[in-house]
Amino acid sequence: MQSLEARIVKDGVVKAHDVLKVDSFLNHNIDVALLNEIGEEFHRIFASEGVTKILTIEASGIGVACITAQYFNVPVLFAKKSKTINISDEVYSAPVKSYTHDKTYMARVSKEYLGKDDRVLILDDFLARGEALHALSDICTQAGAKVVGAGIVIEKAYQGGGDLLRTAGIRVESLARIKSMTEDGKIVFC
Amino acid sequence: MQSLEARIVKDGVVKAHDVLKVDSFLNHNIDVALLNEIGEEFHRIFASEGVTKILTIEASGIGVACITAQYFNVPVLFAKKSKTINISDEVYSAPVKSYTHDKTYMARVSKEYLGKDDRVLILDDFLARGEALHALSDICTQAGAKVVGAGIVIEKAYQGGGDLLRTAGIRVESLARIKSMTEDGKIVFC
Repeated sequence: MQSLEARIVKDGVVKAHDVLKVDSFLNHNIDVALLNEIGEEFHRIFASEGVTKILTIEASGIGVACITAQYFNVPVLFAKKSKTINISDEVYSAPVKSYTHDKTYMARVSKEYLGKDDRVLILDDFLARGEALHALSDICTQAGAKVVGAGIVIEKAYQGGGDLLRTAGIRVESLARIKSMTEDGKIVFC
Repeated sequence: MQSLEARIVKDGVVKAHDVLKVDSFLNHNIDVALLNEIGEEFHRIFASEGVTKILTIEASGIGVACITAQYFNVPVLFAKKSKTINISDEVYSAPVKSYTHDKTYMARVSKEYLGKDDRVLILDDFLARGEALHALSDICTQAGAKVVGAGIVIEKAYQGGGDLLRTAGIRVESLARIKSMTEDGKIVFC
């Protein structure tokens, strides 16, 4: 998606430890007009898949998921990263290693909101090693739901997570795929 | 907001420890069409306030904030609850005691995204004791930004947090205000 790549080049900042900071428009301060373009594009890609539910994980996936859900007219379900008294004990769960937070947590989804009739579109803002996406896909499998695809805003393609998931049979569509980036600010797309 | 109150009565579940479970439509599985009604209503209430930014806190505030932001044409800024390598060290921060998670964390916002020219609408899904709202308002004060109001989806009015903030001079507008609720499922609105 050209406007997204242009925005990443303009406002993204490459930091140490292989971090691409896009918090000025995607995952802290959010440009909702851009999210609408993103949502429209995900709908163009997955419109024919009969999506019944959008699944994401807190926190930064939620904005992308809610805006995109308007184009599909389906609910959003977001996996929780911590146990709260607000969801039941009857959950599907899978571990996720977070490199940005440097810890492993359990992604949890109430069993009542995901089932075998669901055709799920998984959405997230980032895909690097694919840990979160793998966990969400695993949760769908536990529920007997069909994953029709995964829509990612930014994929760090060189980290290999996306291709691992593609090899495993998941249709992963990323709107910007980064081939390489360096701390002098040079970002190359696939 | 009548449709919201009706939905709370229909799908909300009163649990032990004063918990109102609305995870079937608001903060786990999200009815995005309802969020659009909510966003429209917040816009009707705050349209004349010259809002430049919507501020919320992860995670369940993000959906409400992003959908509502479309009506105001402004960005969403969400406070983070944990330190990540994705945001800078230059932050405004304030402590929040969470009763649903039973712990205290720091709400953090990068200094670069909030400033003295901002007219901020704070949005959140729930207001009980007002801890999160108080922290977000405090962060705006640190930034020199003006809080034009706070829009809340569900206020547990009997817990007093909303009135404390109103007394402190913040315009708090809640779309459903609960006067009392009991474990046999009876919910009374103000």
